[in-house]
Amino acid sequence: MHIFYTPDIHSDTYILSEEESKHCIKVLRLQKDSLVQLVDGKGGFYEAIISDPHPKRTSLSVIKVQEEFGRRNHHLHIAIAPTKNIERVEWFLEKATEIGIDTITPLICERSERKELKTDRLNKVITSAVKQSIKAYHPKLNEVVRFKEFIGSVSSTQKFIAHCIDGEKFTLKDKIALNSDYLVMIGPEGDFSPSEVLEALAVNFVPISLGNSRLRTETAALEACFEINYLNR
Amino acid sequence: MHIFYTPDIHSDTYILSEEESKHCIKVLRLQKDSLVQLVDGKGGFYEAIISDPHPKRTSLSVIKVQEEFGRRNHHLHIAIAPTKNIERVEWFLEKATEIGIDTITPLICERSERKELKTDRLNKVITSAVKQSIKAYHPKLNEVVRFKEFIGSVSSTQKFIAHCIDGEKFTLKDKIALNSDYLVMIGPEGDFSPSEVLEALAVNFVPISLGNSRLRTETAALEACFEINYLNR
Repeated sequence: MHIFYTPDIHSDTYILSEEESKHCIKVLRLQKDSLVQLVDGKGGFYEAIISDPHPKRTSLSVIKVQEEFGRRNHHLHIAIAPTKNIERVEWFLEKATEIGIDTITPLICERSERKELKTDRLNKVITSAVKQSIKAYHPKLNEVVRFKEFIGSVSSTQKFIAHCIDGEKFTLKDKIALNSDYLVMIGPEGDFSPSEVLEALAVNFVPISLGNSRLRTETAALEACFEINYLNR
Repeated sequence: MHIFYTPDIHSDTYILSEEESKHCIKVLRLQKDSLVQLVDGKGGFYEAIISDPHPKRTSLSVIKVQEEFGRRNHHLHIAIAPTKNIERVEWFLEKATEIGIDTITPLICERSERKELKTDRLNKVITSAVKQSIKAYHPKLNEVVRFKEFIGSVSSTQKFIAHCIDGEKFTLKDKIALNSDYLVMIGPEGDFSPSEVLEALAVNFVPISLGNSRLRTETAALEACFEINYLNR
């Protein structure tokens, strides 16, 4: 069944945008009374029928609503230094959306090669994964922020930093309280700098290891996402 | 430090191929007595120095060998129906190599859209991930095989099939014996057909679920890879 992302739905009727109307009627060739699904990105999952198959402004009538659809029992925020190759960021966003994530913050670190990011295109990747994997919650992608600013301002119940410098490390399994809200910071290709690690520890980030393998930035972020979702199952 | 993949190393000297010699001497500009690392794909991890920086046939002298470097405590074989978009297969191979996998078999199923696969290029993706993540074992990529042939011929201690059809399902956590050898089958975009699932159950594959999310083929395969590595840590 076809699914539409409708963040601005406010009543039991909804008019698709011109682009989506065209897609719905001209491409998918859906007809009057066809059933479609809608997600609003805030937990609402809707079943609707096409009440007016207008090729430019298709009307939908909602016939069933489920709130908090697929709501997870925890909140996961991953702050990740974007990789030089933007495709790796896109892969991470798609996969993390499928597996389960709530907030992503792109972080600019001392050793970041990439210092800026266009979030528009990345948000489209997330929306596409939301629809493909039928998620009623749309992960929030924050604007890029510098490491220092970020660690000074963020509030999460449990804060972790994954880094590769020698020193005491824990595993997520050792340290996480279940059903909580988590922040995991993942550094750039060249890792966090020692002073960044110290600054994070000073504001109570817990240093973690994600296993014995040497992982790329986006793989490490996905591993953290897997582990936290897995442990909370 | 630079790392080379040297599957044909047999003594304490090694001559790089013309292409790798050029890369080593002309691109990386490594000089006599520079230290490099070698992995042979069969568990051998070597440290070597450049004894002759010849731009077409660079000689290396091994100074240290470690056998069974990073050997894992289990064996994981994933049989996966290749996705229509080959990039998704490549991504899976890269990530699975980083996280830990031994054997991959591309499977042609009833509902497979992709019926063939060039393994040469895919092997290069694996080799590149082997070097990047410093693995001494090179995962083995088998040639494409049809589902029926495969399930009739394969022997693994623990065999699992991940599918989305209603019915009794287990989790890997419930069913796996640790430190064993595992096979997990992952179906194509449209899932295994009901008759394929029945055929697999008839030869003692255990039906599993990989969580509540609707995952793409390559994400499901990676989730299985992650779970098995995680449970065996």
